[in-house]
Amino acid sequence: MTETGKVYLVGSGPGDPDLLTVKAKRLLEEADVVLHDKLPGPEILGAIPEEKREDVGKRAGGEWTPQEYTNARMVELAEEGKTVVRLKGGDPTVFGRGGEELAHLAENEIPVEIVPGITSAIAGPQAAGIPVTHRDHASSVSFVTGHEDPTKDESAVDWDALAATGGTLVVLMGVGKLPQYTEALREAGMDPETPVALVERATRPDQRVATGTLDTIVSVRDEEEIEPPAITVIGDVAGERERVVEFLEGY
Amino acid sequence: MTETGKVYLVGSGPGDPDLLTVKAKRLLEEADVVLHDKLPGPEILGAIPEEKREDVGKRAGGEWTPQEYTNARMVELAEEGKTVVRLKGGDPTVFGRGGEELAHLAENEIPVEIVPGITSAIAGPQAAGIPVTHRDHASSVSFVTGHEDPTKDESAVDWDALAATGGTLVVLMGVGKLPQYTEALREAGMDPETPVALVERATRPDQRVATGTLDTIVSVRDEEEIEPPAITVIGDVAGERERVVEFLEGY
Ligand SMILES: C[S@@+](CC[C@H](N)C(=O)[O-])C[C@H]1O[C@@H](n2cnc3c(N)ncnc32)[C@H](O)[C@@H]1O
Ligand SMILES: C[S@@+](CC[C@H](N)C(=O)[O-])C[C@H]1O[C@@H](n2cnc3c(N)ncnc32)[C@H](O)[C@@H]1O
Repeated sequence: MTETGKVYLVGSGPGDPDLLTVKAKRLLEEADVVLHDKLPGPEILGAIPEEKREDVGKRAGGEWTPQEYTNARMVELAEEGKTVVRLKGGDPTVFGRGGEELAHLAENEIPVEIVPGITSAIAGPQAAGIPVTHRDHASSVSFVTGHEDPTKDESAVDWDALAATGGTLVVLMGVGKLPQYTEALREAGMDPETPVALVERATRPDQRVATGTLDTIVSVRDEEEIEPPAITVIGDVAGERERVVEFLEGY
Repeated sequence: MTETGKVYLVGSGPGDPDLLTVKAKRLLEEADVVLHDKLPGPEILGAIPEEKREDVGKRAGGEWTPQEYTNARMVELAEEGKTVVRLKGGDPTVFGRGGEELAHLAENEIPVEIVPGITSAIAGPQAAGIPVTHRDHASSVSFVTGHEDPTKDESAVDWDALAATGGTLVVLMGVGKLPQYTEALREAGMDPETPVALVERATRPDQRVATGTLDTIVSVRDEEEIEPPAITVIGDVAGERERVVEFLEGY
């Protein structure tokens, strides 16, 4: 009988291969198979030998969702004795379904290890000169999904409460519904002059940054044609960019 | 005239040297001087050659605070033409004063680059089998400082609002004031049965995990003698540990 292999749930970071962890880089070299979707980006995916890459982002037929396919495929490969890297953009447990994949593997008695990655929620703002917390401006930072429609009753995101924290808000998957949640935040009493920044393809060669306020950011998005993947940073910290950008190197 | 050097604000991650980014590892090798405090931990600090390490955590005399000393020293070294790594535990912009150091350098016209690190706020919970977000349990995650006394009027942290988000709360610097903020959260209406985990020295050889509920965690902390540095995770996701821990490898 084959000995069961192992699955590593690995974060790729935001896209710059230099921001892989030492451990992630080594595991990508050692793995028998790397299961991935598109989010890690071309610079990182391109460096993985073709013959061990499997794009699970589009594997689902009519029968299975991509998530079901990925879950089943991880178990199948591990049961064949393979060392599997499940590579996920950013960090695996920040809106990455890492928790569900972890639970699925444990339920199937597959040994699993999680390897954290640099999340775009922190590195995205930072690459634009924006610290997510700041002694003078922000005693908390909240990461939130912008995917849900805030006008729907069953929305799991409470924008009123998030506005009331007074801390920085970082919205992931938030390009499309930007009009809805900026409106929700204004209705919750957030100052319309609050600085907001959009960081598209952070740390990649084609990174772009667009800035405005809670009031203007929707038009800015449209004018600059900002597209996913992008991070929205809302809060006074977004105003820090202006103070530092002249001397900021890197991206 | 000497050409101005450059300062890299670099995150060390939570302590496992394998969780340094490829870029951080290279910069530590190339730097002329590494300014650090204790937080990166012995495994990472011990690998840096003695002759280029400078512990700025305790350099302040009566005149300067450690922060003022660090700020002045970074500028001084860069003006001497040095390549300086300012190494910070976790990520430099998550409760790490990275934003202030960045602003200070820009004000002094020193070229600066930020290199993100794996934050303990994500990797800490994760190393204990806890994903900070989860499709079923948490549409947001908030990182907050536990350093401030929630009973003080001028407290910048709004625990009522944080409780109302319904998302995961991750408290940094929160071992000492655990009684105060768990009380504040119960008063804000959070379920006393909410799972809570403490992760001490996450990803280090002496990592420890202790679990309880909003009601019991203070006694758990005392019995287990949990000490800083530790992360407090509050929310349903903390209950995921139990489901996965048997098959979880790594730390
Ligand atoms: C499904 S979530 C996964 C987040 C990921 N686990 C992380 O920690 O970065 C996808 C969202 O992440 C954000 N994102 C990921 N990589 C990004 C990048 N390089 N630049 C900007 N946003 C990015 C975008 O908001 C995107 O819609
Ligand atoms: C001044 S804050 C700096 C946080 C850091 N910038 C980060 O992103 O992890 C210090 C706090 O970080 C947390 N911390 C840092 N490293 C840790 C580790 N290895 N395990 C648990 N907590 C850690 C603790 O809550 C500690 O009190």
